[in-house]
Amino acid sequence: MNSGSTAIDVSPAPALLRACRREPVDYTPVWFMRQAGRSLPEYRASRAGTRMLEACRDPALVCELTLQPVRRHGVDAAILFSDIMVPLAAAGIELDITPGVGPVVAHPVREPADVAAIPPLVASGVDFVAEAVRLVVRELGPVPLIGFAGAPFTLASYLIEGGPSREHARTKALMYGDPPLWHALCGRLAEITLEFLRVQVAAGASAVQLFDSWAGALSDVDYRRFVAPHSAAVLTGLAEQFPDVPRIHFGVGTAELLPAMAAAGATVVGVDWRTPLDVASARIGPSCAVQGNLDPAVLLAPWSVVETEVRRVLREGSAAPGHVFNLGHGVLPETDPDVLTRVVELVHEASARP
Amino acid sequence: MNSGSTAIDVSPAPALLRACRREPVDYTPVWFMRQAGRSLPEYRASRAGTRMLEACRDPALVCELTLQPVRRHGVDAAILFSDIMVPLAAAGIELDITPGVGPVVAHPVREPADVAAIPPLVASGVDFVAEAVRLVVRELGPVPLIGFAGAPFTLASYLIEGGPSREHARTKALMYGDPPLWHALCGRLAEITLEFLRVQVAAGASAVQLFDSWAGALSDVDYRRFVAPHSAAVLTGLAEQFPDVPRIHFGVGTAELLPAMAAAGATVVGVDWRTPLDVASARIGPSCAVQGNLDPAVLLAPWSVVETEVRRVLREGSAAPGHVFNLGHGVLPETDPDVLTRVVELVHEASARP
Repeated sequence: MNSGSTAIDVSPAPALLRACRREPVDYTPVWFMRQAGRSLPEYRASRAGTRMLEACRDPALVCELTLQPVRRHGVDAAILFSDIMVPLAAAGIELDITPGVGPVVAHPVREPADVAAIPPLVASGVDFVAEAVRLVVRELGPVPLIGFAGAPFTLASYLIEGGPSREHARTKALMYGDPPLWHALCGRLAEITLEFLRVQVAAGASAVQLFDSWAGALSDVDYRRFVAPHSAAVLTGLAEQFPDVPRIHFGVGTAELLPAMAAAGATVVGVDWRTPLDVASARIGPSCAVQGNLDPAVLLAPWSVVETEVRRVLREGSAAPGHVFNLGHGVLPETDPDVLTRVVELVHEASARP
Repeated sequence: MNSGSTAIDVSPAPALLRACRREPVDYTPVWFMRQAGRSLPEYRASRAGTRMLEACRDPALVCELTLQPVRRHGVDAAILFSDIMVPLAAAGIELDITPGVGPVVAHPVREPADVAAIPPLVASGVDFVAEAVRLVVRELGPVPLIGFAGAPFTLASYLIEGGPSREHARTKALMYGDPPLWHALCGRLAEITLEFLRVQVAAGASAVQLFDSWAGALSDVDYRRFVAPHSAAVLTGLAEQFPDVPRIHFGVGTAELLPAMAAAGATVVGVDWRTPLDVASARIGPSCAVQGNLDPAVLLAPWSVVETEVRRVLREGSAAPGHVFNLGHGVLPETDPDVLTRVVELVHEASARP
């Protein structure tokens, strides 16, 4: 998929990869976080009766779910249908993803023995992911596939809290109270995450996105001390083996963290709707592209509002050295999928360079 | 209570009021959001068997709950024990506060008739609040009481969603989709909030805090367009009648909103732990004091960590023209109250001006 890397391939790289690499594009590429999800009736039909982790382990189903939004919306990238808990489950950690709740971990991490008991992820443990990636890439043709993993901090929060948390109080208590144990835990999670992304890229993913959903719960100083080194181990570890594969680094509520998230080894920083992309890019500097950042709730408003806001995001994004259009967080389940399709058309049309 | 306003009172104003007014202080004043709450065994004992709204309507109980943390911790201010939904319930909106869930609104606001049906708050409807304030102030002596209200955006979110919400999707959909209805709703809520604060100040509260818990869900441009005018109506309305009463304006995740929250008529801006106070103060400018901003989760860590972080907050706060020490959000229920007491002692001792 990495079309710039072979001498005989003379076709230009897809717009998504070019924007991620801060190369000129004919139009701004667009995809949506959670585009493979509950907003689509065909997703709900395909997923009916199948639990989340079971779905993630079925290569044919993953392939179908990953392709659905590409077929329907004409987005510029597919993102592998998966869940951030998949590599942890594959490594042997007992957990489930409960509908309406989220990940539930059977034995939360509380002490050194719990960390020592976290097994490494061996590539063969996620054969089903490699197989899904190969199926998807074969079907996608020139459209790039983005690989996907949760970042160490967010994974650690689920493991320590035992499930989703608003305050991350236990997580922070362990982080502040026992830094060696914290770093041991995140070090293990970084190894698992790196291996999980390697498998996806080796199987054909053209870019990756590291989701640190909860990083915005931290101040910059704590993020740099407790989290950035582990996310950097993932991102720079991947860069060593696959230097041409763009690395998108995303979190929510990260207004204060954008420079640190870039410095952790990202080539693209995902930005939520709270920070305008021109402001974000000025903070991050010229060495990273940006991704984002329409408020997902805007898609529930009348089309005239959506259009105004899409054009604003494009205008602000044009100040960055590269811009991948996206939402500032995932598609809300109640979103009308036709609106998503119209947004793709509008982004392409409004950003077209003649 | 407002000791600077009468010629015969020669004692200096309490440190809390002086810091709020950016006047020199002998030590940095400190209080904690949710200091009257579940972290205290005496609170749990007093509240046992009493539902939240019932408790808020019982002046003797409100007085006891408000005073408990002052007695125990020696904080520099009391904050009225109340709930942001109290004035809405008092105005006649059908709602309850469900343990473990939060506010639940019987008939969520969806259309113009729902807004038109919101009654105004008449002062006599919150006689129980005025009575509680008078009881508290009599008991407190020189310690100031901070009055309390939820801001229009946060109240609107509860009314539109029907309860707590992570995404505020319906709220934003109404805001973007029907601005006249949105402004009509927030205008009514601002009137209720202003009246609720007036009652508290008239009864003896020395300062107020306007809580816009969810404002951080918005971008700066949307905050300024859809929210700031209504919060400003509350804050400036209060200032017209009670110019000497400090107005603290607080929200969570407001890194991008701090200047707009100051400009809405605050004299003190509450800052969460994500933005260092020196950075926050530089953004806000010299015309406001700041309040904050220890991460509440730090209080679950060993004392050496707490001490380091308290000293850091004091150091960063000293760059502001006035600093009220507080947490960056409310006290977590699992907090050891002895740690809170030690923090008060440390703040006073470490900030003492000889």
